[in-house]
Amino acid sequence: MSDPSPHHVVIVGAGLGGLSVAHALAGAPVRITIVDQRNHHLFQPLLYQVGTATLATSEIAWPIRHLLRRRKEVVTLLGTVTRIDAAARTVHLEDGGDIPYDTLVLATGARHAYFGHDEWEPYAPGLKTLEDATSIRRRILLALERAERESDPAKRAALLNFVIVGAGPTGVELAGAIAELAHQNLPGEYRHIDTRRARVLLIEAGPRVLPTFTPDLSDYAQRALERLGVQIELGKPVSECSAQGVVFGGEFLPAGTILWAAGVRASPAAAWLGMPADSAGRVKVEADLTAPGRPEIFVIGDTATIDAWHGKPVPGIAPAAKQQGVHVAAIIRGRLAGAGGPRPFRYRHSGNLATIGKRSAVIDFGWLKVRGNLAWWIWGIAHIYFLIGVRNRLAVALSWLWIFTSGSRSACLITQGETRSQTP
Amino acid sequence: MSDPSPHHVVIVGAGLGGLSVAHALAGAPVRITIVDQRNHHLFQPLLYQVGTATLATSEIAWPIRHLLRRRKEVVTLLGTVTRIDAAARTVHLEDGGDIPYDTLVLATGARHAYFGHDEWEPYAPGLKTLEDATSIRRRILLALERAERESDPAKRAALLNFVIVGAGPTGVELAGAIAELAHQNLPGEYRHIDTRRARVLLIEAGPRVLPTFTPDLSDYAQRALERLGVQIELGKPVSECSAQGVVFGGEFLPAGTILWAAGVRASPAAAWLGMPADSAGRVKVEADLTAPGRPEIFVIGDTATIDAWHGKPVPGIAPAAKQQGVHVAAIIRGRLAGAGGPRPFRYRHSGNLATIGKRSAVIDFGWLKVRGNLAWWIWGIAHIYFLIGVRNRLAVALSWLWIFTSGSRSACLITQGETRSQTP
Repeated sequence: MSDPSPHHVVIVGAGLGGLSVAHALAGAPVRITIVDQRNHHLFQPLLYQVGTATLATSEIAWPIRHLLRRRKEVVTLLGTVTRIDAAARTVHLEDGGDIPYDTLVLATGARHAYFGHDEWEPYAPGLKTLEDATSIRRRILLALERAERESDPAKRAALLNFVIVGAGPTGVELAGAIAELAHQNLPGEYRHIDTRRARVLLIEAGPRVLPTFTPDLSDYAQRALERLGVQIELGKPVSECSAQGVVFGGEFLPAGTILWAAGVRASPAAAWLGMPADSAGRVKVEADLTAPGRPEIFVIGDTATIDAWHGKPVPGIAPAAKQQGVHVAAIIRGRLAGAGGPRPFRYRHSGNLATIGKRSAVIDFGWLKVRGNLAWWIWGIAHIYFLIGVRNRLAVALSWLWIFTSGSRSACLITQGETRSQTP
Repeated sequence: MSDPSPHHVVIVGAGLGGLSVAHALAGAPVRITIVDQRNHHLFQPLLYQVGTATLATSEIAWPIRHLLRRRKEVVTLLGTVTRIDAAARTVHLEDGGDIPYDTLVLATGARHAYFGHDEWEPYAPGLKTLEDATSIRRRILLALERAERESDPAKRAALLNFVIVGAGPTGVELAGAIAELAHQNLPGEYRHIDTRRARVLLIEAGPRVLPTFTPDLSDYAQRALERLGVQIELGKPVSECSAQGVVFGGEFLPAGTILWAAGVRASPAAAWLGMPADSAGRVKVEADLTAPGRPEIFVIGDTATIDAWHGKPVPGIAPAAKQQGVHVAAIIRGRLAGAGGPRPFRYRHSGNLATIGKRSAVIDFGWLKVRGNLAWWIWGIAHIYFLIGVRNRLAVALSWLWIFTSGSRSACLITQGETRSQTP
């Protein structure tokens, strides 16, 4: 990592933001080191489908170094950042090893957040990593297995209560997929329970589902979810999550499965830099996406916050991270070409999408609103298009086609969280 | 589980043996309860391909209750057997719950064995479950990631040593696949190491690889492995496995990855029954596959041993388990029809198969020996044929075609063994 060479760009995080910086720097007079604590890039918009047994993990994730294998100037490292010495322009990794940089890009994303109730996490896992997804899949399927063996009617009913907290796109998509899984795919596979009687509750503190969408699309999404058998509870904040169940709107509901889709918190990038952060832990970046007072450090994606959408904050969605990555690459190219000066980032909103089950979706392009089956097809084609690699497009299309036609899920596997042989 | 009903057959273990009993009892005047500690049936012959990042877990495993969903007389239970009360004809499960039976079939398979050195398991994992396979995949890929970051040449060389202990079909297939992965698929993805220089050692205590095959096929397999760059060490028993490496034939070799394919030990079925077992823990069953003195208890597959192959022991391979399952179902039908009397099981050997990488294989049909590329195609077609469900045949064929043509692996994912959110 110490060969004499051109301008060294270090990218921390190989999500959509970090990868788009690397891609957009192709051919630039730089060498790049990309560091991630996972060996794979994850296409998060489809993660809920892994969690609900529709897709396999390898269908939405790709080894980072495989994606960048043809870029000989790019070094991929598996490592965890512990500290950044901005004065010395050095990134420090957990197991030793310093990485000096000329330009640093922090694109480390976010984890789900519990608003000061981290003690809820064991009972209400969120959905951000492949492990989260397989863990959620295991919880859903194990709850049904236990219900099948439970003789106490009250305990059985509790095991058949599936609660999703938070009615943003992730919560809506999880609720729709779980309702379809229980009410349409699995009936007939159990002998002592009727999975059609499983209760899927979507709990939201706010007044409507999909708050970032227009009210009419929220109404449509709510009706579509209710048609799938999802029970929606609005205006009811959650005040307790435990192994027994959840307390919302003051009332307790026993539940075998609670999933958390209510909020996110940025990675500790702000702490690494010792910089002010907003309530969600995001670095308040300058107009050109640089960290305050550190023009050589860029912060993008869910790790940053900026009011670059006609004065409104840029939303934490995939296209925003991609646009910011491309913008950062352009600034770096400009600086190396001597064309300095901050270039303000402007977010171009392509739209909001959310699916409700496998027949319906809502899309808000701003200038156009689409809903129902047509929206689902637009959503499906768009996501297959965004998937990296023809192979995965084929595989995902195959999985969807299979479920669409046969109604049977390919990935209903409970892989146990054995640790015995899992730590090399 | 207490509805008045016909003859109750309890099958413990949903591997190839247990499932074939259930399938062959279709339409018989019985009700069936099938118990397994996993929720999925696993096609073990392809497990090494999950371990070497060729296939995804969901391509070789299927939920048991999904496979049996149309069999309304079959109850599928996720549970772990702790004890069998043969006098009371009751199976006891770990978390409470007794299952009374009229006829019991034990098809609980085997785990890998360390010949009295269980302390080696953390350093030399075997390959029997999906978790084993993903753990092995993680070890192989993590060793390469660490080598990429390792500056000490000696440590780096050790991390690039991959040792497989045992040259039976599993060891041969692992060695060939790892050699191809390191020498053909991954070069170009790393910047500081040359994976073509990774050493893949196949260590065998006996005098030749594939000891159950004819010597000429063993010789061919050895040459084919050596062409793939596998270093073969014969007649060298392993005397030590540790985090540092392996001692074989008296000499120590530092190795970052050690995989165990040297032996298996049967599940504790013999202990459950308090019956004599052979050195591998297998129940010595009667000619009709019943446990000694217990005509209502059958033991089949890797859990049992019987000299029913022209006086030789039946090999522990998939077709043997299937044949025994069908035989047991026939006996049960016969008894219910009043046609009693023990019917001796005779094993019909269909052949031995093993692949060497993705271009070559050896097949010994007895009356015919096939080797090389043609054998690989026969092997591939046979295994795709045996895969349950058209969907998986398509998916596996797609995966193989993809690797065959593009040379890139679809499943090089390191999913971390996080326990935080993995225990519901």
